[in-house]
Formats: sequence, C-alpha cells, structure tokens
Amino acid sequence: MFELHPQLDKDCMTVGDFLLCKLLLSNDSHYPWFILVPRRMGVTEVFELNQEDQWQLQQESVHLSQVLYNTFKADKLNVAALGNMVSQLHVHHIVRYRNDPAWPAPVWGKFPATPYDSSAIQALLQPLRDALSHGFKFAESPL
Amino acid sequence: MFELHPQLDKDCMTVGDFLLCKLLLSNDSHYPWFILVPRRMGVTEVFELNQEDQWQLQQESVHLSQVLYNTFKADKLNVAALGNMVSQLHVHHIVRYRNDPAWPAPVWGKFPATPYDSSAIQALLQPLRDALSHGFKFAESPL
Repeated sequence: MFELHPQLDKDCMTVGDFLLCKLLLSNDSHYPWFILVPRRMGVTEVFELNQEDQWQLQQESVHLSQVLYNTFKADKLNVAALGNMVSQLHVHHIVRYRNDPAWPAPVWGKFPATPYDSSAIQALLQPLRDALSHGFKFAESPL
Repeated sequence: MFELHPQLDKDCMTVGDFLLCKLLLSNDSHYPWFILVPRRMGVTEVFELNQEDQWQLQQESVHLSQVLYNTFKADKLNVAALGNMVSQLHVHHIVRYRNDPAWPAPVWGKFPATPYDSSAIQALLQPLRDALSHGFKFAESPL
C-alpha cells in the first residue's frame, strides 16, 4: 500500500494523480514548484522501478514539463530527483524565471518557503485543469 | 552537427559515448559526478527530444545510475537536468555519500571544483570499463 512520505505531505499539497504518479505542489510561492511521486512502495532510485514504470514516469514527467513550460511561460525548467533528505522517490519540476529570487542558482536551501494563500493556489492551478492530460485526475479537494 | 557547449567542455572530461548521449566526468574530485549530454543540436528541455530519444535518454540514465550506484557504493544518486547556466540539455548524475562535503545539500554552488590528478581519474574510471554497456564506447583518450 502506497503512502506519501510525511515530510512531502507536510511541505506540499496534493494536486491529483497521473496513472503512475501523485502530483504535488510545493507550498512555496517563490516558484511554481511541482513534484511527481510514483505510487510505489519502497522505491528510492528510478532504476528500482520496473521498466514499464520507468517509461510511464518519463512520459508523465515530459508531459508535465511541457504543460508547466507553456502554462507558466517558463524561462527554464529544473527537473531533479535528489532525495538526500526524503528517501521516497520524488521528482521535482520547478518553473524558473531569470528574475526569480534564486536565479541562476538551484532553489534548494536558498530561501525559507513562503506559503501560498488559498486564492493564489486556485489561480495557479486553474489553467492546469484544461492542460493536464495523460489520464490525470484532479483531487476532489486539491488543497 | 552536434557540438558540446564550451562551458561543459571546459569543466568536464569526455569519458565516451552511449548511443544517444556523450558521457562526461565533471572535473571536481569532491564527488563522482557524471553528466549525460544527448548529441542533438539546439535542445534545452527533455520534451524537445523526439519520443524515441526521450526513451533512449531514460534508458541510458537508468543504466548509468545503476552502474554508478553499484560501482561506487553510493548512499544516494542525485539526477538532475537544471540548465540555468548552460542551456544545452545535460543531465547530472552525482554519486552522494552521507559523509561527502555537501551532504545533505545539493552540490551546486557549494564548493569550488577541486580538479583530479590524472592517476585519480584513471582509478575512478577503471571499474566503469567493465560495467558500462548499452552500446557504450569509451573515448580512445578519455582525458
């Protein structure tokens, strides 16, 4: 039975689910920062997924990347599986702008998270409702 | 015609080539730090590759990750496509240890690179000669 790591649960909100991955929004309004978490137990590295799941993860990552890039008119995406603090496999997808507070450095450890207010979350997620496909299902109560 | 970005050329050594990607070693002896660069011109984001290349990149990344993890007895791998400084698509594969100098932070921007001496490079690469497959070809003069 898959369970989201408590630290991810604490730091993020669930947006919904692809066929393989849970899609989270990091509660840090500095950047549109999304995270894919394959719903598989005990997996830390991508190579621990079976080949079918590896390909599904790649497809969901590519689809999400393209949607984020277009929707948020990104200058760059940062896509990363680090996992030094939280061992459950999770893949960051962070929309970056040349004028964001951390640019051009990576975002981790730069600034304490600044939580969204709920109207800002709705405004952020609304355009994704039409854009995400690949079997994506929004959580009934995404927050 | 594919050309390696001059900054990657300056900071790294070419180890060899997979079917799609050039494999580089970052000349920073703090961490075994490898980089895959798809030999495609003008590509910045993974979604700009065609679907065949996306899958090939994923397979080469997974294979490299597993080889690095086993060969260097990693505690964790950090796999990341950032590209804020160098727009040519390149995917970091960094072997992390709980006692490495940056742990548990990401490595970027933490310490100035400490170059290898040539015997250390040979010692680092030697075990990869038997372990890398997936059509990998070592450069004749990997340094």
